[in-house]
Amino acid sequence: MLKIGIIGCGAIGREHINRLTRLIPDAEVVGCTDYYLETAKKTAVQYGIRTVYKTGEDLIADSEVEAVMITSSDPSHATYVLEAVRLGKQVFCEKPLAQTTADCEKIIAEEVRHNKPLVQVGFMRRYDPGYMEMKRIIDSGSLGAPLMIHACHRNVFQPEGFQTEMGITNVAIHELDICRWLLRDEYKNAQVLKVRQSSRSTKGYDNPQIVLLETENGSRIDIELQVADGYGYDIQCQVVCEKGTINLPDPNSVIKRADATCSVQLLTDWADRFTTAYDIELQDWVNCAGEGRPTGPTSWDGYVACAAADALNRSRGTGKFLAVEMIEKPALYS
Amino acid sequence: MLKIGIIGCGAIGREHINRLTRLIPDAEVVGCTDYYLETAKKTAVQYGIRTVYKTGEDLIADSEVEAVMITSSDPSHATYVLEAVRLGKQVFCEKPLAQTTADCEKIIAEEVRHNKPLVQVGFMRRYDPGYMEMKRIIDSGSLGAPLMIHACHRNVFQPEGFQTEMGITNVAIHELDICRWLLRDEYKNAQVLKVRQSSRSTKGYDNPQIVLLETENGSRIDIELQVADGYGYDIQCQVVCEKGTINLPDPNSVIKRADATCSVQLLTDWADRFTTAYDIELQDWVNCAGEGRPTGPTSWDGYVACAAADALNRSRGTGKFLAVEMIEKPALYS
Amino acid sequence: MLKIGIIGCGAIGREHINRLTRLIPDAEVVGCTDYYLETAKKTAVQYGIRTVYKTGEDLIADSEVEAVMITSSDPSHATYVLEAVRLGKQVFCEKPLAQTTADCEKIIAEEVRHNKPLVQVGFMRRYDPGYMEMKRIIDSGSLGAPLMIHACHRNVFQPEGFQTEMGITNVAIHELDICRWLLRDEYKNAQVLKVRQSSRSTKGYDNPQIVLLETENGSRIDIELQVADGYGYDIQCQVVCEKGTINLPDPNSVIKRADATCSVQLLTDWADRFTTAYDIELQDWVNCAGEGRPTGPTSWDGYVACAAADALNRSRGTGKFLAVEMIEKPALYS
Amino acid sequence: MLKIGIIGCGAIGREHINRLTRLIPDAEVVGCTDYYLETAKKTAVQYGIRTVYKTGEDLIADSEVEAVMITSSDPSHATYVLEAVRLGKQVFCEKPLAQTTADCEKIIAEEVRHNKPLVQVGFMRRYDPGYMEMKRIIDSGSLGAPLMIHACHRNVFQPEGFQTEMGITNVAIHELDICRWLLRDEYKNAQVLKVRQSSRSTKGYDNPQIVLLETENGSRIDIELQVADGYGYDIQCQVVCEKGTINLPDPNSVIKRADATCSVQLLTDWADRFTTAYDIELQDWVNCAGEGRPTGPTSWDGYVACAAADALNRSRGTGKFLAVEMIEKPALYS
Repeated sequence: MLKIGIIGCGAIGREHINRLTRLIPDAEVVGCTDYYLETAKKTAVQYGIRTVYKTGEDLIADSEVEAVMITSSDPSHATYVLEAVRLGKQVFCEKPLAQTTADCEKIIAEEVRHNKPLVQVGFMRRYDPGYMEMKRIIDSGSLGAPLMIHACHRNVFQPEGFQTEMGITNVAIHELDICRWLLRDEYKNAQVLKVRQSSRSTKGYDNPQIVLLETENGSRIDIELQVADGYGYDIQCQVVCEKGTINLPDPNSVIKRADATCSVQLLTDWADRFTTAYDIELQDWVNCAGEGRPTGPTSWDGYVACAAADALNRSRGTGKFLAVEMIEKPALYS
Repeated sequence: MLKIGIIGCGAIGREHINRLTRLIPDAEVVGCTDYYLETAKKTAVQYGIRTVYKTGEDLIADSEVEAVMITSSDPSHATYVLEAVRLGKQVFCEKPLAQTTADCEKIIAEEVRHNKPLVQVGFMRRYDPGYMEMKRIIDSGSLGAPLMIHACHRNVFQPEGFQTEMGITNVAIHELDICRWLLRDEYKNAQVLKVRQSSRSTKGYDNPQIVLLETENGSRIDIELQVADGYGYDIQCQVVCEKGTINLPDPNSVIKRADATCSVQLLTDWADRFTTAYDIELQDWVNCAGEGRPTGPTSWDGYVACAAADALNRSRGTGKFLAVEMIEKPALYS
Repeated sequence: MLKIGIIGCGAIGREHINRLTRLIPDAEVVGCTDYYLETAKKTAVQYGIRTVYKTGEDLIADSEVEAVMITSSDPSHATYVLEAVRLGKQVFCEKPLAQTTADCEKIIAEEVRHNKPLVQVGFMRRYDPGYMEMKRIIDSGSLGAPLMIHACHRNVFQPEGFQTEMGITNVAIHELDICRWLLRDEYKNAQVLKVRQSSRSTKGYDNPQIVLLETENGSRIDIELQVADGYGYDIQCQVVCEKGTINLPDPNSVIKRADATCSVQLLTDWADRFTTAYDIELQDWVNCAGEGRPTGPTSWDGYVACAAADALNRSRGTGKFLAVEMIEKPALYS
Repeated sequence: MLKIGIIGCGAIGREHINRLTRLIPDAEVVGCTDYYLETAKKTAVQYGIRTVYKTGEDLIADSEVEAVMITSSDPSHATYVLEAVRLGKQVFCEKPLAQTTADCEKIIAEEVRHNKPLVQVGFMRRYDPGYMEMKRIIDSGSLGAPLMIHACHRNVFQPEGFQTEMGITNVAIHELDICRWLLRDEYKNAQVLKVRQSSRSTKGYDNPQIVLLETENGSRIDIELQVADGYGYDIQCQVVCEKGTINLPDPNSVIKRADATCSVQLLTDWADRFTTAYDIELQDWVNCAGEGRPTGPTSWDGYVACAAADALNRSRGTGKFLAVEMIEKPALYS
């Protein structure tokens, strides 16, 4: 039984508490906290959580808490992760790991000091059955080496306050992780392209954007990124190999023939797209972290996604591919 | 150059003249006639046809005419076919060959007297690339023996005056031909089932209907038949073999993602569905009939479809499978 | 917390225990038993179940057990269900409810005596998201009244000892339930047709078979049934309404383009097809039975499936539709 | 009746002669020539062509020839086109119009001198029903403005002697035309990217390549280009608009379920992909050129494709978008 404390009781936090409580037999949520203490208290009552902590630091410090799940606001992630790692606790941190590569590097340094990985970053797509099957096929070698990825990530509505850079750091970040995972390769160069502005998107911010990446092996990746596509939440991914291609399947749905049209419904809410992946992800973390050897996306993976996002955001308007700059990979992560 | 005379200058007649004139180099339409002589005259002017005959009999009798195409009204087919065969001319007759099996048998007897097949019946689906590919796969034996066919034939609107029996003789007739062609098998028993009446169909007439057939080899066929489906012209056919299944492809169309829906357009007009099949059919007839050896659907095929339709229409309301009664197959047709 | 005792610790029994233990917070498996007592003991150890009972009757009698789950061998179902209902306990019984309609009627009589439904039968497809969406669309009325269902149920291999009748009672039984549930209609007539025997199936037993049903409203249902299709576990269902059709979606899978072929993998193991449905089903049962008002398939539903299967097996070889004979439906179930 | 002379009796030349002879009633092929005179003579015999000319210049000069079809080797196109235009004759020229933008400009100047367009370039995709339907949807405005195109053009085998630049000038040239036609927009910048080399492609030449284009309106286009994809001839095109997306349909094919796989066959020969488009294209040219007002792709369109290809080939290795440099568009072409 892994005793878990949760920092952040917002939507995704409560969903994860629900999963840990309902689906995962070897997990026990022993405590929680939130920036708004009332929210934490309500959540504790709802899910029968014993202890409400005043701060994330208190929660992390309590010896009762073996593992820390961080689902607080993005800017607060890094501090909590660092503190939990300092105390040698297992950590599950929702993406992003940190706002800056510098903060990621501090976390990495702390893990290196402990000489073991303690952190799993919430790149849940690695647990999606579709992506897992794609990886299995690529790794089997039956289609030869992977050469290209064509991907797109489309959201229906652009949330208020959503800025150009966030298209990379909050949306495309999932592709930045999943593409290198599929390819078993690292990024070398990156460039983001501005596209004719959709009248559906907020004036003054770039939408759509196109992300281009080149890997160490010379593979090319293009990612279309939309935050106001007007029709659905649509995630597509095609990997082109030497002998063939594979495509991420769409969620299935009833096929209707009516009104001279054959149609299937598309999802519009991102929350419906990767529910199975989230389930498997948390189960896997509890299993593996409980044994002190998390096997999911590491701090290094969080760092690489951050470094690629950095290069992309710096490239905007330059018309050039910029190098994705990274520190040397500690042996710990290989 | 095959010199062809056309009896019947209605819609399908003019379409075939257009094909013979425009697409088929070795065909020459030398004469035409129609129940409404004015129609024949106008058609002759439009397509540059030399001779307009007063009657079908005149056209058939003229030695100038080597081959006769019959696209007149259904009840008139048999008489014209019989007369043309009597004079030893090549005949292309739109389906149905005749209204009764008795008339079909007369035509067959006349061909037997000549000791060669002269007639091709307009079952154009045998020339559709989709059905042809299905047949190729079945005949290859790669999927084992065929065991069942599930088919449906759906029309958008029920024409005025359309009666229950015509669902079999004018609509399902195409399936009655194509199924035995696909299976290389003959019908043994047949039954038509009444179905909950669609409020879209004319009161007092059966629609939809379900056709059931059993073949000599024990294969089973079910055909859903609708004449007012309300959504499109939809032809589906699945052959189930011992090791797998094959499906007739839908016509392709642009794939649209919009309004939370992924969709393709369906056809609504039957005339758009088998245009390629018609093109290939007439080309083939001109080639083969020109050499005196038509290879398409024969009088026997027209007869079998008629006999199966008979059994089906007789079975209505009996709740039983009735035998499909046929004369012995003349050696000529094997 | 619903305290559940399990009778039958075979494959499906252990899977359900696993679900109840791992996924469903408000359920507690307090006891188990099995024909082979060793199996029950092992299962108890594996899942931390407190009590192992010598017999199903002992388990049912223990006041500690609030609800009984019956996953024992098919012929034993009825006796256990009857005894549990007699004691007023909630029951979840895997399909079939009983081997004979007579036994079903006894169970119904006992529920009527209690004047409340206590039994849920394991027709899990009602909880499959695909079927649920189909029902939602039909019930919305947007496509008009349902007129026909075309379904197929295909298994890869025919288990040893599998007999002709079992194709109906053990395989098509799922369609017998789901079709009337989709249509909100009852069966009137039924007929099973023999089909050309597949060389893949055991000599002397009918395979494939075709099931035909007519409902009170005149809707028609055809179900292709295969127990040795040679290619995959394939469940298909199309409902034809007055204005259009809807199809059950296939499980999704990676789309591969290679070797001049575009392909997706199909399932071959039935156990992979409805896992989500089983999860939702048990969760729903625990929720509703816990409150004393089960909302899933009732004894009546189990009875109707049994009555329809009876009519079908009696019809074999008669060439006739036989009436599906049922007692009057007790008010309890409406 | 348009009297046509053909320069170049190779594969595509003979196919076009076949179309003009067999499918198109208002066309007459009155003469032909070829670099290898024997080939021209054989072709003339095969298709009953009256006159064989010693040179293309002789053919163009003969007053008998009203319209010239140029299907000779690529480097010879420009000279013949220029000469035919000089004499005021209608011209159909297979792509490319010329090897250099300079040569295209000469042809344009000559048309401007005549003050009417005389040339149609063989960009047949504009006549493909799939692309036409895509354009219809875009032009309808129902999906809002077009923002991006994702396309790919994949060939199975790399012909001997096929060089890097030819990937652009001979393969992607079709996309260079169709994309601006779909978007009603002109190219501003262009860049070609080198991709990890496929082991299936000839050493030393770039394959795959990725083409990036930006239009005047800011729309972005990415085109994956492969000349040795190993699995099929695959043409894909998705246009992303403000409210949704549309995809070019694949050619349809029988759907097979066997061996735990659901599959359709893909084409492997490019010649099978656009046969309908070629048919419609030539019919349209004969109709319109016969009336002295060709409506298909003009010299200007040939020029723009050439200019874009130039920019792309110049950009290789620079890591930059280069401007697509063009002369001002003569009023003649708007």
